[in-house]
Amino acid sequence: MSITFARGFRAAAATAGLKPSGKPDLALIVRDEHSPHAGFAAVFTSNQVVGAPVLVGRDIRTRVLHGKIAAPRAILVNAGNSNAATGEPGVRDAQACMTMVADGLGCTRDAVLPCSTGVIGRPLAVEKIREQVQGLVRGLATGDEADAAAMRAIMTTDLVPKHARREITLSTGTVRIGAIGKGSGMIAPRLDSAHAPPTPSATMLGFITTDAAIASADLQHALERASGESFNRISVDNHPSCSDTAICLSSGMHEQKPGHSPTLIRRDTADFDIFTHALSAVCRDLAEQVVTDGEGATRVFVIRVVGATSDRAAELMAREVVNSPLVKCAIHGRDPNWGRIVTAAGNAGQPMDLDHASLTIGPVEVYRGGVPVVAALSDARLKEAMGGTKVELRLTVGRGPGQSWMMGCDLSKDYVSINADYTT
Amino acid sequence: MSITFARGFRAAAATAGLKPSGKPDLALIVRDEHSPHAGFAAVFTSNQVVGAPVLVGRDIRTRVLHGKIAAPRAILVNAGNSNAATGEPGVRDAQACMTMVADGLGCTRDAVLPCSTGVIGRPLAVEKIREQVQGLVRGLATGDEADAAAMRAIMTTDLVPKHARREITLSTGTVRIGAIGKGSGMIAPRLDSAHAPPTPSATMLGFITTDAAIASADLQHALERASGESFNRISVDNHPSCSDTAICLSSGMHEQKPGHSPTLIRRDTADFDIFTHALSAVCRDLAEQVVTDGEGATRVFVIRVVGATSDRAAELMAREVVNSPLVKCAIHGRDPNWGRIVTAAGNAGQPMDLDHASLTIGPVEVYRGGVPVVAALSDARLKEAMGGTKVELRLTVGRGPGQSWMMGCDLSKDYVSINADYTT
Repeated sequence: MSITFARGFRAAAATAGLKPSGKPDLALIVRDEHSPHAGFAAVFTSNQVVGAPVLVGRDIRTRVLHGKIAAPRAILVNAGNSNAATGEPGVRDAQACMTMVADGLGCTRDAVLPCSTGVIGRPLAVEKIREQVQGLVRGLATGDEADAAAMRAIMTTDLVPKHARREITLSTGTVRIGAIGKGSGMIAPRLDSAHAPPTPSATMLGFITTDAAIASADLQHALERASGESFNRISVDNHPSCSDTAICLSSGMHEQKPGHSPTLIRRDTADFDIFTHALSAVCRDLAEQVVTDGEGATRVFVIRVVGATSDRAAELMAREVVNSPLVKCAIHGRDPNWGRIVTAAGNAGQPMDLDHASLTIGPVEVYRGGVPVVAALSDARLKEAMGGTKVELRLTVGRGPGQSWMMGCDLSKDYVSINADYTT
Repeated sequence: MSITFARGFRAAAATAGLKPSGKPDLALIVRDEHSPHAGFAAVFTSNQVVGAPVLVGRDIRTRVLHGKIAAPRAILVNAGNSNAATGEPGVRDAQACMTMVADGLGCTRDAVLPCSTGVIGRPLAVEKIREQVQGLVRGLATGDEADAAAMRAIMTTDLVPKHARREITLSTGTVRIGAIGKGSGMIAPRLDSAHAPPTPSATMLGFITTDAAIASADLQHALERASGESFNRISVDNHPSCSDTAICLSSGMHEQKPGHSPTLIRRDTADFDIFTHALSAVCRDLAEQVVTDGEGATRVFVIRVVGATSDRAAELMAREVVNSPLVKCAIHGRDPNWGRIVTAAGNAGQPMDLDHASLTIGPVEVYRGGVPVVAALSDARLKEAMGGTKVELRLTVGRGPGQSWMMGCDLSKDYVSINADYTT
């Protein structure tokens, strides 16, 4: 089980005909109406060009965090059309979909979050969606079948469905977190924060449900921290989408320890830290599945940058490495052409102290103190490290305190095939 | 003729055995000892990791501009090994090569500029180079044969040699500019300025000779302006190299109009503007040849961004478009999937005014006022525009005064083949 693993959630899927393949393309995720503690959190793309659902979702987020409206209880996701670059008509189309679902569930329009992924710049076929809404609402269920249907319906170029879950024990009882996600190309999420201006980054969608009892404001903090250490650390093609979104809904229906009354998880408590850690693990699990299923990918790699002047400087260097087509091709070819890795980091515009720079591929140091370790290239362990399904790179760029990491995938001929012929 | 087109220059090439192919790999370009006005200018990569020749060249540039040493008169170029990420031993190797050539020419070590391109992180085979220097010096010549040999010797993954030339008439006489260049992968030069801090930007090498009479300081201004509108406007794979370099040497030996005495070209004169314009044209010519010969490239595209808040904002948006693997694959597949273009620009972190945004592919507007022009996709002219060898994109992002452009190439399966198996 995944999206209905946590108590208080149901899901359903349907086929509206939005995908040329004719496969299922609509999913509905709903929290039970009478949840004791309804919470909501969301992070959206930092792209300047955003889909209509992102505009609508941001507005709902603002109003929830300001206490103007209750946490929404439903998410309607369609795949096949991103409803992006569609202007004001696109927003009206998203709202029309929200209204349909609200009517079916008997809630307000703003209690329904729209979410779309697929081709950009095409009007959304609202009437095709309308024909499926009644069936979706009637079909809401819990269990493996409902979960599998929902996670398949949100796929676009994904080869495999993506899901994750965790169960944790807090002071008040056992809490479940379940999630489904999608993403394969146009992946490099840089999800924003409701609390700070967007730190300027495919379509990656992540939907997480939990039966924790937690207020929206605190859930938002937890989701932002989790996103920063998961979704925002991956890149397939360095092209953040106009629709990247991660949404978390909480129900408060977790199993309580005998003798404990329902208590909200509050920030600055041990329970909050345990919860956030588990949420991060779920998000990291989904994120790694996305990179592993990256378009055309045959293997993944992780670049850790340490010794930078700041964590931000380290992140910028890690991003250059993970996104360099030359590095990605070297990873594909199992080629320890490490000069590409070092020079990619050098393009971040961040200071490096080459006298204290080094690079390790798996267990083998290939570059130390600014000079090549010549013997390394003939080391059998280097060949083994380059040949695995997950290549580990560790780049030291100086003696500073800053560190960060990014996970990416190789660049193969299949990536070109998939993307040279997508709309036509 | 190219590198010896301008009066006062000779060139030669040799084979030292630095390329696995065994093809020619050394070129020497020399200005005549008794040039009436010797000038020099250079721009180097902004990468934090730089080859030993860049460290040496920057130092020479500083000393020339401060009047401490005379303009150098020779450039020794090797292909097959970039002498980069080689630390202090690499600098000593570069200096050893400079000394050999200086001894051969009878000049000071600092009158010789070293330049290297090829694999990163391997010690330079100085002794192999030493064996060829005498022959190189003896072989110095002018004419098509010498030019052709020099431009072939500096190639790495280039499929075709690159050259350009212009002849212009100034108030004092006829001036020639000739150039050779190389570059195919690891191309996205962001060349620095001697006058301002590096505005943070493959191996692209450009060597330009001119018989203009111009002082080094003024030539430096002219070269920086020319680079900004040529080398710095191209990208094959968004990976600036540790060795990107453009060097211009001037001799002052141009043909003088009868009755005119030799006069230096000075800034803020009509002659300077005409000269700089011609130098830019030569550099743009070389730059376009580099992109056209980009690894695996089958076609090029130009993205012009207008209406941005500033030229810099426009440039950052154009860079996101030209470097998006999704856009590059769409260009490869002749696929008018324009949403990728608009969302790529949206990732620059720069403001866009979508109500006044539009996109034109060739003559066809596909997006206007933030909404799709649905009829555009069936326009036969769109198919024609996407099918050409040069695709023209014009993106309006608002009503601001900022504009810029970038030229890139498509991403093909051949790029992956070339780069998945380069050192091994």
